[in-house]
Amino acid sequence: MGQNLALNIAEKGFPISVYNRTTSKVDEAVERAKQEGNLPLYGFHDPESFVHSIQKPRVIIMLVKAGAPVDQTIKTLSVYMEKGDCIIDGGNEWYENTERREKAMAELGLLYLGMGVSGGEEGARHGPSMMPGGSFEAYKHVEDILLKVSAQVPDSGPCVTYVGKGGSGNFVKMVHNGIEYGDMQLIAEAYDVLKSVGKLSNEELHQVFSEWNKGELLSFLVEITADIFGIKDDKGEGYLVDKVLDKTGMKGTGKWTVQQAAELSIAAPTIASSLDARFLSGLKEERVEASKVFKSGGFGDILAEPAVDKKELIDDVRKTLYASKICSYAQGMNLIRAKSMEKGWDLKLGELARIWKGGCIIRAIFLDRIKKAYDRNPDLANLLVDPEFAKEIVERQSAWRRVVCLAINSGICTPGMSSSLAYFDSYRRERLPANLVQAQRDYFGAHTYERIDVPGSFHTEWFKIANQSKM
Amino acid sequence: MGQNLALNIAEKGFPISVYNRTTSKVDEAVERAKQEGNLPLYGFHDPESFVHSIQKPRVIIMLVKAGAPVDQTIKTLSVYMEKGDCIIDGGNEWYENTERREKAMAELGLLYLGMGVSGGEEGARHGPSMMPGGSFEAYKHVEDILLKVSAQVPDSGPCVTYVGKGGSGNFVKMVHNGIEYGDMQLIAEAYDVLKSVGKLSNEELHQVFSEWNKGELLSFLVEITADIFGIKDDKGEGYLVDKVLDKTGMKGTGKWTVQQAAELSIAAPTIASSLDARFLSGLKEERVEASKVFKSGGFGDILAEPAVDKKELIDDVRKTLYASKICSYAQGMNLIRAKSMEKGWDLKLGELARIWKGGCIIRAIFLDRIKKAYDRNPDLANLLVDPEFAKEIVERQSAWRRVVCLAINSGICTPGMSSSLAYFDSYRRERLPANLVQAQRDYFGAHTYERIDVPGSFHTEWFKIANQSKM
Repeated sequence: MGQNLALNIAEKGFPISVYNRTTSKVDEAVERAKQEGNLPLYGFHDPESFVHSIQKPRVIIMLVKAGAPVDQTIKTLSVYMEKGDCIIDGGNEWYENTERREKAMAELGLLYLGMGVSGGEEGARHGPSMMPGGSFEAYKHVEDILLKVSAQVPDSGPCVTYVGKGGSGNFVKMVHNGIEYGDMQLIAEAYDVLKSVGKLSNEELHQVFSEWNKGELLSFLVEITADIFGIKDDKGEGYLVDKVLDKTGMKGTGKWTVQQAAELSIAAPTIASSLDARFLSGLKEERVEASKVFKSGGFGDILAEPAVDKKELIDDVRKTLYASKICSYAQGMNLIRAKSMEKGWDLKLGELARIWKGGCIIRAIFLDRIKKAYDRNPDLANLLVDPEFAKEIVERQSAWRRVVCLAINSGICTPGMSSSLAYFDSYRRERLPANLVQAQRDYFGAHTYERIDVPGSFHTEWFKIANQSKM
Repeated sequence: MGQNLALNIAEKGFPISVYNRTTSKVDEAVERAKQEGNLPLYGFHDPESFVHSIQKPRVIIMLVKAGAPVDQTIKTLSVYMEKGDCIIDGGNEWYENTERREKAMAELGLLYLGMGVSGGEEGARHGPSMMPGGSFEAYKHVEDILLKVSAQVPDSGPCVTYVGKGGSGNFVKMVHNGIEYGDMQLIAEAYDVLKSVGKLSNEELHQVFSEWNKGELLSFLVEITADIFGIKDDKGEGYLVDKVLDKTGMKGTGKWTVQQAAELSIAAPTIASSLDARFLSGLKEERVEASKVFKSGGFGDILAEPAVDKKELIDDVRKTLYASKICSYAQGMNLIRAKSMEKGWDLKLGELARIWKGGCIIRAIFLDRIKKAYDRNPDLANLLVDPEFAKEIVERQSAWRRVVCLAINSGICTPGMSSSLAYFDSYRRERLPANLVQAQRDYFGAHTYERIDVPGSFHTEWFKIANQSKM
């Protein structure tokens, strides 16, 4: 990714020096720069000459593995750097590491940014979404470059902004990835319902997702999903997707998102269920064994195969995917806001939706609606109650309930869609059964409760009263 | 709780010294000891005379707020203690704090235990479930006392065991509390379905839960739930439970459980959904506003009021509660096992189920079935595939699907029951749609994938192939 980002920067007319401990990678980058149009990219085989080749105040972007390798790289480079120079970490780093490093660098007179970069290899080369946070002074040094190398979205501008202080850039990128987990899981569930219940072929799935990519679901992930269904297996008969093992890997940002949501008391069930789905997918051998146990208990992978109207099902699933997506983004946005309030980052949710409109993995036309929702009301408590989204949900909720129940009765699982629905139905309910839970807590732990009619905090001797009445 | 535990110990014939910074609490304990039968409990107003009053090797049990107060108490007491003396923390402490303290104490020649204690005030007084972990030598010093003061279950013994090394006692207590969150949420959902859809009165709910408490659901939480429905409001008309505000508090162990599950790659959706339900319950004002938005959008708190046969519904809900409970415990047990493997604690899951059979908040006849499942097979991959539990689930799964779909179509939310069902349906499925997610990851991030037919790790140039075929 570092190589691609360097080529991108060089292509935009900014001369750039590159360095890697593995010198062959440096040479490779130089060679590519030549081939891709004699781009102004210069390779260095040792850190000292690399640093000294850069114009002051120097700006260095690191793209190395998060954690210890970042500390090591900083150590290697910073000895040659001078006051006012700037280091940018472009990796998926834990936000607190960035905050620690920013402070340590400040003591050396160096500036520091933690910058989330999304878009994969392609994005890095041709325009990623970039989420820089940390030293504003450092941001100003590189703003010109970032504005040009980031993805450009018509009527919306470059997909970069100064996110905020401290580790906010990393935090926002982390939640972006959590949302990405949610999107991917919801798409997988749509696939599952259409394939397992609707009996759609890969060719039909390719058509459906291609069609969806022309409407409200227009997005990078739906587009590549359509592509995937169209690709034949190069090692045998049929389609490649059917040969791919049903085990999903992960690299940590989804886990962090779920842990942070718990930490900040934010319900994020759609994102959490997508993480759980990855965990359960990893237990392939256990699942194979469990499936045998329950098959012998009398039921198969698919319990029922209800007759469905394909066209209606496709339409219902599209609506379900969209409505569930609103819930997932509502959770992610509320998580960012909660952290922003805790840390005093003053993050602008609408602006974040804007810079996700291009370049990144979750880029989608849908993000424009989110930006508009926050434009309408920057203090919006939850995306669900934005008038436009509320209207869209009301229009889709019958389909949503049909699809989740159809999946349940067919014995397939749509954890993302059903937890999204539960999130919606919980959030819009004036009265939840939480009164009982609080009464239980007061019963066994004297945790007290509030009343609906009188202010204050109350405790009842439930046990005593119940046992008096038993006597 | 400290006072009650001290009285319990004294009552079992063990002379005990008590100390509290607030001297009135010491005097209160002494007074209660007198009143409750001249129990051998001696009060001290300063830490030095308190420590010196104890027979060597001294054993001191602290019951103070977790975190800094524990460190402070250790500091205050340890200066008067001598090599071979022992400190026990009986609070809900983060397990790593216990491990840190055990090491620090070892340097002073002191022994240390982190001991989870469950049962609330009543349990502490008359027999709690106790989960001591840390120094085995320390455990041996107090084993006689713990065996007598803990809850006694016929045919099963005292509800205490040496859990394991390090912070294992605290960790197990943390998961116990996470499971408790799950149990309480599932009961609240059962209540919600019976009340909102089945239109049961509090009197009927009281009868139903009392009845349930005679069968497979026999448990402390079902028992107190039955009690709660029977209690009239002492401040006005009707039943108290209806006057309790639907906002549930929490104190941190549920959050830790969910974070640890994510950390250890264990899917724990039932427990996570119970935590989310507490978070969402706390947003009372937002929910009131959201409910207005959606009411004006055309639908009320309850969307549909299908005609249901009360008796059948009650039976279905009972089965759903039971099946969901199996999933929740499966998650908790797997979380404990994952940590045990990570830390080399060698925890015995069946033995933990045994010590939870009495004294603690989750005590239930159900735990005996769990113990037996692990007796049958200590290496059981998941409770769901134990032959007995598998059979019970198969018998209940139709009811489970009916209840969740009924709730969904009525517009009420059963996040615990539906996420449990999704957990079950995911775990027992040989093939999940995770192949698509992994294909997506390989498409945009070159994360590679495995195949179902050939071993190895593969990468496909999805983008190139898709775009060749488009041309």
